[in-house]
Amino acid sequence: MSTPNTVRLLLVGLGNLGRRFCDLLVQKGPEVEARYGLRLVLVGAADSRGWAYDPAGLDPARVAALKEAGGSVADIPGVGRPARPAAELIAQAEADLLCEASPVNLRQGAEPGLTHIRMALDRGMHVATPNKGPLVLAYRELHDRAARRGVQLRFDGTVAGGLPALYIGQRDLRGATVHRIEAVPNLCTGYVLELLAEGLSWEEAQARARAEGVLEADPSFDLDGWDAAAKLVILVNGVMGYPARLEEVERTGITGLGGAEVVAARQEGRVYKLLATADRLPDEAVSMRVAPVPLPGDHFLARLGRKQMGVIYHTDIYGTIMAAIDEPTPLPSAATMLRDILDIYTNAHV
Amino acid sequence: MSTPNTVRLLLVGLGNLGRRFCDLLVQKGPEVEARYGLRLVLVGAADSRGWAYDPAGLDPARVAALKEAGGSVADIPGVGRPARPAAELIAQAEADLLCEASPVNLRQGAEPGLTHIRMALDRGMHVATPNKGPLVLAYRELHDRAARRGVQLRFDGTVAGGLPALYIGQRDLRGATVHRIEAVPNLCTGYVLELLAEGLSWEEAQARARAEGVLEADPSFDLDGWDAAAKLVILVNGVMGYPARLEEVERTGITGLGGAEVVAARQEGRVYKLLATADRLPDEAVSMRVAPVPLPGDHFLARLGRKQMGVIYHTDIYGTIMAAIDEPTPLPSAATMLRDILDIYTNAHV
Repeated sequence: MSTPNTVRLLLVGLGNLGRRFCDLLVQKGPEVEARYGLRLVLVGAADSRGWAYDPAGLDPARVAALKEAGGSVADIPGVGRPARPAAELIAQAEADLLCEASPVNLRQGAEPGLTHIRMALDRGMHVATPNKGPLVLAYRELHDRAARRGVQLRFDGTVAGGLPALYIGQRDLRGATVHRIEAVPNLCTGYVLELLAEGLSWEEAQARARAEGVLEADPSFDLDGWDAAAKLVILVNGVMGYPARLEEVERTGITGLGGAEVVAARQEGRVYKLLATADRLPDEAVSMRVAPVPLPGDHFLARLGRKQMGVIYHTDIYGTIMAAIDEPTPLPSAATMLRDILDIYTNAHV
Repeated sequence: MSTPNTVRLLLVGLGNLGRRFCDLLVQKGPEVEARYGLRLVLVGAADSRGWAYDPAGLDPARVAALKEAGGSVADIPGVGRPARPAAELIAQAEADLLCEASPVNLRQGAEPGLTHIRMALDRGMHVATPNKGPLVLAYRELHDRAARRGVQLRFDGTVAGGLPALYIGQRDLRGATVHRIEAVPNLCTGYVLELLAEGLSWEEAQARARAEGVLEADPSFDLDGWDAAAKLVILVNGVMGYPARLEEVERTGITGLGGAEVVAARQEGRVYKLLATADRLPDEAVSMRVAPVPLPGDHFLARLGRKQMGVIYHTDIYGTIMAAIDEPTPLPSAATMLRDILDIYTNAHV
């Protein structure tokens, strides 16, 4: 392969996914350069305490180590800028692509992620993001912005962790009408329901999930079904081509479910999952629902394990396509940004 | 959308898949033009009794009806050429893309499909084919030919019917190392094993499978594991990047299996499947095996139904990705040619 193509990356958000993405840059950098002719250079990074920018490249190993130790990139001597917002970095940096991995925040207008993505697209950067919020709130607007600037917007990690649910639905089902989508896109509720089915109390199940890092400090986003509903909205926009909005999803979380109900269902061979479904209606509309459902034991999604997510596409010409991922750690979710970058810059069919 | 882009198609092979592809052109033509701006025009078609060519376009509905009635495209007045080989059509026609759907023939050097594909690529046509033979025997050569002419070679339908196993493995796993592939890529053996597990004799199971159209007149290609081995070779070439050859696959069919063994396994909660596996070895080689295996009942591939196929990719950074298809008729397999065509000509991310 000839001279590698350099891709200058900005990474905003250095939590669970951003930090692991830095690890991936270290681990996979040489291979990506050798196999795909791409040199990925992290020129800028931002966390909640500031940012750092170096056109010659920040060391991703150092960034990951700093975060691991509780520090901030803003502390890196010479290039760090403490107490300055990530938006400033995006506005000023010379870069080719933004990885937007700031925390999901549906309650406050998906900010600051939405602003970050708008700015990057308007400045002619590609965007790869596992951040659901901006896509849920502004799916069409962001796509139009990207198209106007001739850049790519990718968000494969927004739907079901590392499972390429969107890529399968958007590319591999081309030509088909998708009548129905069924998905279990949320890891946390599956884990809690599994513990309840084993006879643990709600308190025990939540404590275990929290100890495992599966449950956030404020668990209502997952347990009340907001996360699953947001993912369903993105799937329906991307795969069914219907401009779905979050308000249209009929949503029931799992918190109303009694542990005894879950145990009883299991004894009858049924398995409770927080199921997200979308059905195409005769008038081109789509009805969407998120609710705990006692699936029959032989249902594809009933068989998902504790750390698994899955999706089913019911199509007219490709039969029924089912896909699932076993994701014991958040690494696959972080790796979706690498998948998105490689998808933008490389051709798999050579 | 502006003026549609016309794609002139040749279709060689009008059996099960070719005929259904004609149906798809009828059913999906207007939608493909409206959604993707592509006008698919069937300018030439060939079966075992001759060919027909019309630069203005053959009527795919008429071709399908002719075949349904036991006729040949060579009989179409004015444009039909009886008793002439398909290669002649490919050599002379003005076309953009060849759909090669002639019968799989591994025993005779994958001919005539291999010659057809070589000719089409050399003449600057793209190729979409569900025909395993040529890919198994000449994977690298055909890719090199396509690259030299700057055309696309697509063969998503060669591996697991309508399941986009190759597209997932080649595109969505970019950046990953695939350590291990497990697949149940053959429909027929799964069906027969399921009947055996229910207590039918080998004779009864084969008769039922034949009546259902699942078993070919000469069933040894499926039952002896050749089909699964051929599909594994294509998967390993495409997804693991290892130049696998058919001779390297350690192959055991299901015919040596006693019905009683299958029943006994089921009673213990295990499920026999003809499993194809590939494991990356430390020295960059890959070991490949096809054999009936009594899978534990909770194994993803043990749960496949009678008309289902599936694949599992064990990766370093995307976790474990599992995909399956329920394919009650050969329509999804025929539709892979449409998927391939749309993949060549359209951009899903706009």
